[in-house]
Amino acid sequence: MTRILYALAGADRARPFSPHVWKVALSLAHKGLAYETVPVAFTEIPAIENGATKTVPLLRDGDRLVSDSFAIALYLDETYPDRPSLFGGEGGKALARFVESWAQTVVHTALVRFVVLDIHDCLGPEDRAYFRASREPRFGKSLEAVVEAGVGEIETFAAKLEPLRALLGKQAYFGGAGPSFADYIVFGALQWARIVSQKVILRDGDPVKDWFERCLDLHGGVGRSVTAA
Amino acid sequence: MTRILYALAGADRARPFSPHVWKVALSLAHKGLAYETVPVAFTEIPAIENGATKTVPLLRDGDRLVSDSFAIALYLDETYPDRPSLFGGEGGKALARFVESWAQTVVHTALVRFVVLDIHDCLGPEDRAYFRASREPRFGKSLEAVVEAGVGEIETFAAKLEPLRALLGKQAYFGGAGPSFADYIVFGALQWARIVSQKVILRDGDPVKDWFERCLDLHGGVGRSVTAA
Repeated sequence: MTRILYALAGADRARPFSPHVWKVALSLAHKGLAYETVPVAFTEIPAIENGATKTVPLLRDGDRLVSDSFAIALYLDETYPDRPSLFGGEGGKALARFVESWAQTVVHTALVRFVVLDIHDCLGPEDRAYFRASREPRFGKSLEAVVEAGVGEIETFAAKLEPLRALLGKQAYFGGAGPSFADYIVFGALQWARIVSQKVILRDGDPVKDWFERCLDLHGGVGRSVTAA
Repeated sequence: MTRILYALAGADRARPFSPHVWKVALSLAHKGLAYETVPVAFTEIPAIENGATKTVPLLRDGDRLVSDSFAIALYLDETYPDRPSLFGGEGGKALARFVESWAQTVVHTALVRFVVLDIHDCLGPEDRAYFRASREPRFGKSLEAVVEAGVGEIETFAAKLEPLRALLGKQAYFGGAGPSFADYIVFGALQWARIVSQKVILRDGDPVKDWFERCLDLHGGVGRSVTAA
C-alpha cells in the first residue's frame, strides 16, 4: 500500500515547513502509520495528482486522496480506529475545531507577521515571485513592511499564548496526559516558525516552550527530523 | 433526594449572577436533573454546609457535596452516565480545560474590567464592603478607576472573541451541532455581564451574540429565567 504525504518545501527540499503539513506528519506518527514524504514547491501544487488539490497537505492513502489537515485527521481516525485516537471521541472532535480557530486567528496571524519574509527567502526563484505576488495584496504592503511592523509584536506575542500557558498549569498537553490532534494543530504553527526563521519566538522558562519541546520529542522525535533555521 | 445548588446573589436574591454557578445551572438542565437554588451572599459562603467551601458553586447531591464548576460537571457526567453527556468523551474533557483557560484569561479578564462596579452596586451592604476590600488590592486601584480604564476596551472586546467567531463559522456550538459544557463555560461569563450590567458588550449581527442568544434559549430558556440588567 502506498501512503504519500505531499509536503510544501522551499529551495531545500529536505525542509518541509508548512504548519498544516506538520499537523498531518505528527498525526501519522501518532497513529504509527508509515508514509513517504513528497516535497513540492508552491507553484508545483496544482500539478500533483492530476490537479487533485490547490493546497497541501494532500495525503494519498492507497487509492484514497484526502486534502485539508483537519479532514485528514478525521479520515485517519475513521479509517484506523484500532490505532491511538487523534481526538478521543466526538466531544474532542468538536473542540479541536475551537483549538484550530484559536490557532488560526491568534497564533498564525501573529506568527506570519514575524516570519513571512523568512518564508519568502527560503523559497526557490519561481515560488518567490508567486509568494510575493499573492501575499503582498493580502497584507496591503510589502513583505518587508509587514515584518518591520511586526518587530515590536514579538515582545507581546507571549501574552497571546496565555490561554495555552494556563492550560499547561493543569495538564501536560491539550489532549490531557498525552497529546492529541489539538496539540499538533498548535505545534504546526510553532514548528513552521522554527524551521523558516531564526527569530526567538518563545523564551526559555516559558511553559509553552517546554510543551513545544515535548512535542518535538514525540513519536521518536519526528518534529526534530528537520533542524531549526 | 435533595439536590441543592448554592448560588451567589446580590441584594436581590432572585438574581444569581456568578458565571461559575451559571455553568452548573446549564449543566444540570443539560442533564435534565431537577434542583433547588439556594442564593447566598459573598459573606455567607463560609457558613454554608458547615464550612464546606470558600467559593460557589457548591452542589449538594443527596449526601455528596461537590464544589468547583468543572469538578461538578465531571461529577455529573460520571454519576449520571445515562443522561446526555456534558463532554462527549475523554478528548472533550481534556479540551474543555482549554476552553476554560481561554475563558478565564481572555473573556473574564476583559469583562470584569467592564462590570466590576456594576457587580459591587448589586450587592447588599456587607458584601459591598467585602467586595471592595478584596478586589481593589487585586487591581491595585479603586473599582471606579478599573471601570474607567476599561471604557475604551469595550470597543476592542469583540476582537478578543474572534476564535469563537471563527468556530461559529464552522459549527453551531463548541459542542458541535449541539451544546456541551464548553459552551456553558463561555456562556457563564457573558451571562454574568448580562445580569449585572446594562453595558452593551455584544453587538447585533455578531455571530457570538447569536450563539449567546441560542444558549439563553437552551433547555426551556433557563438562562432567561433571570432578566437582563
